[in-house]
Amino acid sequence: MTQHASTAPSTRPEGAAAPALQRQFVNFSFHRLDHSFRRLGDNEKFQARSEFLQLFQAPRPGLMCLTYSTVGLKADCDFLLWRISYSSDDFQKQTQAMNKSRLGAYLTQTHSFLSMTKRSVYIDKLDPFHTPESRTHIIPGKRKYLFVYPFVKTRDWYLLSVEQRQEIMDVHIRVGNKYPSVKLNTTYSFGLDDQDFVVAFETGEPKDFLDLVMELRETQSSKYTQRDTPIFTCVQTPMENILDQLF
Amino acid sequence: MTQHASTAPSTRPEGAAAPALQRQFVNFSFHRLDHSFRRLGDNEKFQARSEFLQLFQAPRPGLMCLTYSTVGLKADCDFLLWRISYSSDDFQKQTQAMNKSRLGAYLTQTHSFLSMTKRSVYIDKLDPFHTPESRTHIIPGKRKYLFVYPFVKTRDWYLLSVEQRQEIMDVHIRVGNKYPSVKLNTTYSFGLDDQDFVVAFETGEPKDFLDLVMELRETQSSKYTQRDTPIFTCVQTPMENILDQLF
Amino acid sequence: MTQHASTAPSTRPEGAAAPALQRQFVNFSFHRLDHSFRRLGDNEKFQARSEFLQLFQAPRPGLMCLTYSTVGLKADCDFLLWRISYSSDDFQKQTQAMNKSRLGAYLTQTHSFLSMTKRSVYIDKLDPFHTPESRTHIIPGKRKYLFVYPFVKTRDWYLLSVEQRQEIMDVHIRVGNKYPSVKLNTTYSFGLDDQDFVVAFETGEPKDFLDLVMELRETQSSKYTQRDTPIFTCVQTPMENILDQLF
Amino acid sequence: MTQHASTAPSTRPEGAAAPALQRQFVNFSFHRLDHSFRRLGDNEKFQARSEFLQLFQAPRPGLMCLTYSTVGLKADCDFLLWRISYSSDDFQKQTQAMNKSRLGAYLTQTHSFLSMTKRSVYIDKLDPFHTPESRTHIIPGKRKYLFVYPFVKTRDWYLLSVEQRQEIMDVHIRVGNKYPSVKLNTTYSFGLDDQDFVVAFETGEPKDFLDLVMELRETQSSKYTQRDTPIFTCVQTPMENILDQLF
Amino acid sequence: MTQHASTAPSTRPEGAAAPALQRQFVNFSFHRLDHSFRRLGDNEKFQARSEFLQLFQAPRPGLMCLTYSTVGLKADCDFLLWRISYSSDDFQKQTQAMNKSRLGAYLTQTHSFLSMTKRSVYIDKLDPFHTPESRTHIIPGKRKYLFVYPFVKTRDWYLLSVEQRQEIMDVHIRVGNKYPSVKLNTTYSFGLDDQDFVVAFETGEPKDFLDLVMELRETQSSKYTQRDTPIFTCVQTPMENILDQLF
Repeated sequence: MTQHASTAPSTRPEGAAAPALQRQFVNFSFHRLDHSFRRLGDNEKFQARSEFLQLFQAPRPGLMCLTYSTVGLKADCDFLLWRISYSSDDFQKQTQAMNKSRLGAYLTQTHSFLSMTKRSVYIDKLDPFHTPESRTHIIPGKRKYLFVYPFVKTRDWYLLSVEQRQEIMDVHIRVGNKYPSVKLNTTYSFGLDDQDFVVAFETGEPKDFLDLVMELRETQSSKYTQRDTPIFTCVQTPMENILDQLF
Repeated sequence: MTQHASTAPSTRPEGAAAPALQRQFVNFSFHRLDHSFRRLGDNEKFQARSEFLQLFQAPRPGLMCLTYSTVGLKADCDFLLWRISYSSDDFQKQTQAMNKSRLGAYLTQTHSFLSMTKRSVYIDKLDPFHTPESRTHIIPGKRKYLFVYPFVKTRDWYLLSVEQRQEIMDVHIRVGNKYPSVKLNTTYSFGLDDQDFVVAFETGEPKDFLDLVMELRETQSSKYTQRDTPIFTCVQTPMENILDQLF
Repeated sequence: MTQHASTAPSTRPEGAAAPALQRQFVNFSFHRLDHSFRRLGDNEKFQARSEFLQLFQAPRPGLMCLTYSTVGLKADCDFLLWRISYSSDDFQKQTQAMNKSRLGAYLTQTHSFLSMTKRSVYIDKLDPFHTPESRTHIIPGKRKYLFVYPFVKTRDWYLLSVEQRQEIMDVHIRVGNKYPSVKLNTTYSFGLDDQDFVVAFETGEPKDFLDLVMELRETQSSKYTQRDTPIFTCVQTPMENILDQLF
Repeated sequence: MTQHASTAPSTRPEGAAAPALQRQFVNFSFHRLDHSFRRLGDNEKFQARSEFLQLFQAPRPGLMCLTYSTVGLKADCDFLLWRISYSSDDFQKQTQAMNKSRLGAYLTQTHSFLSMTKRSVYIDKLDPFHTPESRTHIIPGKRKYLFVYPFVKTRDWYLLSVEQRQEIMDVHIRVGNKYPSVKLNTTYSFGLDDQDFVVAFETGEPKDFLDLVMELRETQSSKYTQRDTPIFTCVQTPMENILDQLF
Repeated sequence: MTQHASTAPSTRPEGAAAPALQRQFVNFSFHRLDHSFRRLGDNEKFQARSEFLQLFQAPRPGLMCLTYSTVGLKADCDFLLWRISYSSDDFQKQTQAMNKSRLGAYLTQTHSFLSMTKRSVYIDKLDPFHTPESRTHIIPGKRKYLFVYPFVKTRDWYLLSVEQRQEIMDVHIRVGNKYPSVKLNTTYSFGLDDQDFVVAFETGEPKDFLDLVMELRETQSSKYTQRDTPIFTCVQTPMENILDQLF
């Protein structure tokens, strides 16, 4: 498990001043198409499709947006927009464009997880070469699968000493490092949304991720999980193909 | 974290009679536009828009109402009305006007948190200059972001002695005071709605608020949180611009 | 807090035979108007309004029905019917009439709490003059606000001895008696509905009720609360005015 | 409380071979009418009504089906079909007929509890005369009220010794026997549906049932209740009258 | 209870290299037909039916798909597709075809459980002859009933030693082996979906399965169940007959 964003390690001596890095907003936005859209005429559907694809091809400076399909794999949603920007306004501008489109009149945002990047407070002793940039900037990969879920730790966790938590995280990180095909992106939602963190795992090998999560259940860190659902299996898919799957 | 409304400190010697200050009703009212509205003709949408804007520009003596957008940031709602008045009738009159409008025929109130102002029972020793007025009157600021959530404390909290609670709150307040960019408004819902309190944080710096909430997790007060969700990230936005985002 | 219905005191020596008083059924029935109703023509709305008002003015012997508005104050409902009768058939007959009306084709019952009156098993030593009748008959007042919620006690509560429970209730009752502006009506739902009790507080002073509930949090009885939500703030309003608020 | 079906006592010496009695499937199927049905023309409603009544009058060999109204008494449902058969196919055949009817295009099954009959493992020492047949066959009565709820016991319960459980059940049964007007039907859902049991109480006296449930709260068995909601108050009503209540 | 897929035993000495067996994706996909479909004309329904049946008869190389009816037995769904494939793409392709069909414009996926096959970590000492293939490949049977539910174990379970868990599973397996008519298929969802496992029991004798689950409640393994709902009773039914049941 390679680590990015806020769970990555620090090479900086503790206590040294951190370079001032601008933190990013991150939004995992899940959408579902009202099935009544499928009852429209072919021409109407074709026009809605063209307009929506154009909307997604239009340049949106400052906004990074990756598209994933959940069609057939998760009830209550059809696709995910993984959005990253220095400004939350960029998310709202894109949603505004979607709302004004023909397809937008049949779309519902069924889940939204809002978060920000932040340096990890834990030190990954096994991988001391990550730069500060790698920790505060999401670099979404090109892997097929993305596994996303909101994550809430028990209040007891936060009342452990820093040393106790570091010790528990050491084991957690050691298990993660056995699965190099899995890349973790952790972002922070404290106060911004219902969860503490949003975790997003990228991999080409779902079975590795499954085995990793199962192995982590046996570590002490598992005891301090309050909630880690709903879990979404998402398949990286161009918007064009997502629309093909939908109507 | 500057404090307003009921969590602000008291300069009055304990036991002294408090001046009789009229308490306010507060309502956080979240609304969602039915997406079928977007399927209407341009003319119909234009008329609905004009009428709704007029409705929000009409004077409503006694009612303070701030508008926030949640478009794209939170599933299940599009905007928030933060309403403050000495009479709950003023909330009902405004909702009546909305219900009678064209847009109102497509709006649903998806969440409503009702509360009242009240003096805090805790003393903020670090900031003893607030007047009683500042504690029982909401003075909404001009900051971009508002973070709102209902808050329920465990029953164990209320069975602690006043001294134990003051001690725990001292630490809580000390952490809060490290984040002067964040302004807290606490109002009380006991018996009026499902939560004990509604807390509303105003700030221009979401990352400061995130860091504040994360730091508070490590204080003892955290143990006594029963529920602090759903959490809403709201962006102060004129109603005109909210409607632009919606259709 | 004056007490009525089943929480009222007994002047009868324990063990003496109680007079045979007929117990009442009580139903708190919350309704929401489908917002599509607002899209109908003015004439259609006017007719639906007239018909519905007539329905509520028609005499229903045996049924006492008070109407309360929750418009703008609680998501998911618009008004409450507080219904009291010796026969549950009377509730069904009134609902039948509503179902057959034009407005009824757009109304949904979103919450229903069913209960019966019953003598309290606790003795209010501070107010020994209530007659048995006052305990088994609801006498709804003329106060502006009604606060209603379903109430479930922990199973531990029921396994305390009668003496322990009476002692805890003594403190509870003593706190309540400090708030004479608040009138409590407790009814019993064991086996009839999801809660143990439905509690309904009438007052003209919401702030007194808020302060009362907050003060009760610090009593031992608070520990034995399993669930006391959802809480509804209801405003006594003639049906004519409720319809004015709705369309 | 007289006991039927699986909670009834055994006269057979323990260990003796039980006669091979065929066990029944039981289904508590709750339905709600979409309120848009009420907006149809009178003729259309009349035809839908006639067709649906015919459907319920048609003989269904092997299927016992009792009809109950919940109109006005419980949100989210209008009527209950209490269905009993040796084959689950009979339930599906009846639902098929409903689905094909005009009214069926406006009906939603909002709750379904599926279970089977089974001998009780507990011995009712106070009533040793029930035959094995009475325990594995539901004999629905002619009483006005039926109180139905799904029932889940804590896992701790199942880890008590058989003796401990019998002792606790003895007290439970003793309390039940004080209320002869209440007839209990217990059926088993382990593995077939979300609950352990479905309990259905028949009585003409709701107040007796209420008092019985309240008295049972004070017995040890109460501690081992994990969930006993939602609770439905159902009134035995011919389908003809249910339809009268609905439109 | 015969065991298949991942709960089956291992004959391989522990530590020996396992043959590289390709693991399968499994999806339990539940669907509900919008009741408004039933209001369409006969011709439209007939065409939708023909098209949908063709879709299900078309060869889908690599995809195994079994169809089950839940009509009348479980609220909120009408049928289940039990899908098995080496590639999750096959699930999405089939859903795409359904989405493009006329009936698909009225279908909602109400539940989806996604999982993969995996060898069990527990050894079934009573049945040491299963081959590795039997453990990583689902071989769906021809039995009438399928009982499906998502399964989450407590975190405490995973912190027991391997020996403690094996000991508890030995008892669990011993009870299961008393019910040879019940065939268990366990698949793994860690990180892919909200549950740890999806368990699917095939049998011709629901009463045996009910008795098995009830007996398992009394074993220690029962203590470590966090969640095992919702439970679905599914009846193996050709798609043609499912459509007959629906409209």
